[in-house]
Amino acid sequence: MVKKSEAGDESKLLTLDYNNVTAEVVGADKGLGRTELEAMKRHLTYAQKSFLRRKAKGLYPFADLPFDAKMASLCRRLATEGRKKYDDAVVLGIGGSALGANAVFSALRPLNHNSLPDETRGWPRLRVADNIDPESFEVLLDGLDLKKTFFYVISKSGATAETMSQFMIVTEKLEKKLGRKSVKDHVLFVTDPEKGVLNKLMASSPYDFSDSLSIPPGVGGRFSVFTAVGLAPLAMVGVDVAKLLAGARAAQEDFEKPVMSNKALLFAGLNHQLRSFKNGSSLVMMPYADSLARVSDWFGQLWNESLGKAERADGGPPAGQTAIKAVGATDQHSQLQLYMEGPEDKIVCFLGVEKYRANVKIPRLFQDQPELAYLSGRGLGDLLNFERQGTARALAENRRPNMTLLCSVVSPQTVGYLLQTLMLATIVSGSLYGVDPLDQPGVELGKKFTYGLMGREGFEEMKARYDKGLKSDPRRLV
Amino acid sequence: MVKKSEAGDESKLLTLDYNNVTAEVVGADKGLGRTELEAMKRHLTYAQKSFLRRKAKGLYPFADLPFDAKMASLCRRLATEGRKKYDDAVVLGIGGSALGANAVFSALRPLNHNSLPDETRGWPRLRVADNIDPESFEVLLDGLDLKKTFFYVISKSGATAETMSQFMIVTEKLEKKLGRKSVKDHVLFVTDPEKGVLNKLMASSPYDFSDSLSIPPGVGGRFSVFTAVGLAPLAMVGVDVAKLLAGARAAQEDFEKPVMSNKALLFAGLNHQLRSFKNGSSLVMMPYADSLARVSDWFGQLWNESLGKAERADGGPPAGQTAIKAVGATDQHSQLQLYMEGPEDKIVCFLGVEKYRANVKIPRLFQDQPELAYLSGRGLGDLLNFERQGTARALAENRRPNMTLLCSVVSPQTVGYLLQTLMLATIVSGSLYGVDPLDQPGVELGKKFTYGLMGREGFEEMKARYDKGLKSDPRRLV
Repeated sequence: MVKKSEAGDESKLLTLDYNNVTAEVVGADKGLGRTELEAMKRHLTYAQKSFLRRKAKGLYPFADLPFDAKMASLCRRLATEGRKKYDDAVVLGIGGSALGANAVFSALRPLNHNSLPDETRGWPRLRVADNIDPESFEVLLDGLDLKKTFFYVISKSGATAETMSQFMIVTEKLEKKLGRKSVKDHVLFVTDPEKGVLNKLMASSPYDFSDSLSIPPGVGGRFSVFTAVGLAPLAMVGVDVAKLLAGARAAQEDFEKPVMSNKALLFAGLNHQLRSFKNGSSLVMMPYADSLARVSDWFGQLWNESLGKAERADGGPPAGQTAIKAVGATDQHSQLQLYMEGPEDKIVCFLGVEKYRANVKIPRLFQDQPELAYLSGRGLGDLLNFERQGTARALAENRRPNMTLLCSVVSPQTVGYLLQTLMLATIVSGSLYGVDPLDQPGVELGKKFTYGLMGREGFEEMKARYDKGLKSDPRRLV
Repeated sequence: MVKKSEAGDESKLLTLDYNNVTAEVVGADKGLGRTELEAMKRHLTYAQKSFLRRKAKGLYPFADLPFDAKMASLCRRLATEGRKKYDDAVVLGIGGSALGANAVFSALRPLNHNSLPDETRGWPRLRVADNIDPESFEVLLDGLDLKKTFFYVISKSGATAETMSQFMIVTEKLEKKLGRKSVKDHVLFVTDPEKGVLNKLMASSPYDFSDSLSIPPGVGGRFSVFTAVGLAPLAMVGVDVAKLLAGARAAQEDFEKPVMSNKALLFAGLNHQLRSFKNGSSLVMMPYADSLARVSDWFGQLWNESLGKAERADGGPPAGQTAIKAVGATDQHSQLQLYMEGPEDKIVCFLGVEKYRANVKIPRLFQDQPELAYLSGRGLGDLLNFERQGTARALAENRRPNMTLLCSVVSPQTVGYLLQTLMLATIVSGSLYGVDPLDQPGVELGKKFTYGLMGREGFEEMKARYDKGLKSDPRRLV
């Protein structure tokens, strides 16, 4: 585990400890030995060069985002005006249009931000409507004072069924409540700079929509947290987006370091080796902090949607390492049994926090009970860190590979650093697996069936195909 | 997929559709053919008899809980008194002491229950403190008016480090705020009827603790939702626990049905066959309802902690099928790519809802945009159901096995029925895999290391073992 002296360095935002994935700790059949680490190093050297070359050609615009201060200042300016006018900021978006804002908001605003009284909160509440469940969407809308609510409509194509359904419902509600002319004052489009339905609506609709922020071409949803997709709502609720980008910049700069001291490369390379040669088919991302729980949701999309691909350069079997979300210490009482004793197909990545932002001390009570006395006088944060360390060690003794990403604190800088590092690791992993980490062809078929079932013009064939192939043997309906 | 005519029957609480795991739909290499289904049937016939025999011997007390109306009435009585006195009900519990209450609360109370004004809500808020994160626990405590708060301290042994730390902190806070004598009026122990630390504290402590509810011996945390562990807090926040038990009773009665019309048996048997012979090493539980999202958290513990076991009757490799949580439609934009194209090791179980409790209609706007026009006039619930069906079908066409559990509605009866069915399926799975579904030996080692690191008396050796074995090669700390 990480020693105080090493990770305590405040200037070090994030530490990766991978001792527990080595053959030395978990054995040669489960862990990586010297030869494998050497092979990994060669692959990574190549992948790093390839990344930097492609980046220079403009193929990875996400990697340039942290250096573009313009969007961040624009978002801050909009927020400075907005915070006076609005009580609620609502993101209408799904997948990559929601997960980044959700993750950073949970990490950096107080966990009770939305229930704080106006004067303490100082910034609008944030609501992220990332599903079309009629029950939760109704509850959300019923809780809003529309006059004081601002909606971010986030969709690159403007054709996302879920987001656009929400947008249509909201538009009608705003019109009924505030009049047609006012609708546009409560809506900001975050979309492609030129293409797509939202741009068409700006060109012509009864509502004179005019406000939009652009998602740079070439930046897909799961890499968009540092575009307006993330920055606009985050600035509006009081996140220091400048510091967030500063952290991301540091990660991007650190990506030029030599392989064996490069966290993004090592995270990608170690997992790729474990996946390819040691049956590490799942990667459990397990933050030991409630504030980081949604970072593992965000990571789950990033990793799974980027790497879960049928088409590989070498024609090999389907790629992908299944990222699984867990939260410590909670899931020690729920998932750990499986990780310790179940199928040996998992790598656990602990996401630790060296110093929590609150200090809650366990008082000296019930000293005559040995099951309680040892807790007295300790901080909850100490207990949480010891549980993480004890769990990592128990897994290692059971020869279950695990690694630790340790944040010095949870701050805009560390979160920015962490997210950028994981995005870089994802792209590098794509090149190690020989897949395109930027596409998601597998989601189209389900959408087309849905269009068919919804009766969308031009998709009659999909409806016919659905009906024709429908197997509904009543014996298998129980 | 399930046809309206079949599942529309209001008397049918839950339907299992397993057409899409058959060889006929997904091919013989991925799906189950006639021979495999026949073999399954034989195993299940045996497992059912064995379960009923063991139940008659009192080995599965969880299966008798739905028939015991006493605890439910006691909890309702306590709630009738409590709702007048308290604004907040707080569960101090982790793992099985928290997940059941969380799941049922989210399913059956309005999604904004906790933020409703007192007069509309009518019952206390529910807070579940299932982690020791100092940041979230501080925020929770700061938001409470202790005079109007009631704490459930839930731990069978009374030695759960996380829960007892919280309890010690809360005790001190209550004493400081309300005086020593009042502490006991705000605390209810839910614990073993005789053994454990909480009983010792009732026998002797400066606080005269006297109120407790029993967890029946032989009912472990993950099977305890229908004991006081779940029922007490749930009744307090307005859940109709009598109807919940009625649903569970119906499931228990249905468990006596013949194998091929027995949902619990089939859910266990199909997954066991797919796991054992078709590489179905993961089971994605994917509710299409925000209200059921926490049911998949609850299921994740139930399935993983019960079945993820090293010790098998036949000496085979480690057992377990990794339950993964997802939520539709949201995760179609996050996880579906992996499920469609990634490693062919997953079974997706859709958890659908035929009729949602809210009806939100998409208005007729923007009719000149074909990407939007087809949405007009539809309900969000229709779209959500079509997305579920389209996704199930797309997976099936890609030869990815999937099944659907369809609730007619989300109600106390259907939720009770669903949870009892899944608990029964878990026990049956234990016997199919040849593991003990009721123990969790794998979590002990991590606890012992934690005790050692915390300096608990008697665990000095664990501290020494930790230090001695610590691999912390600085080259692997990046």
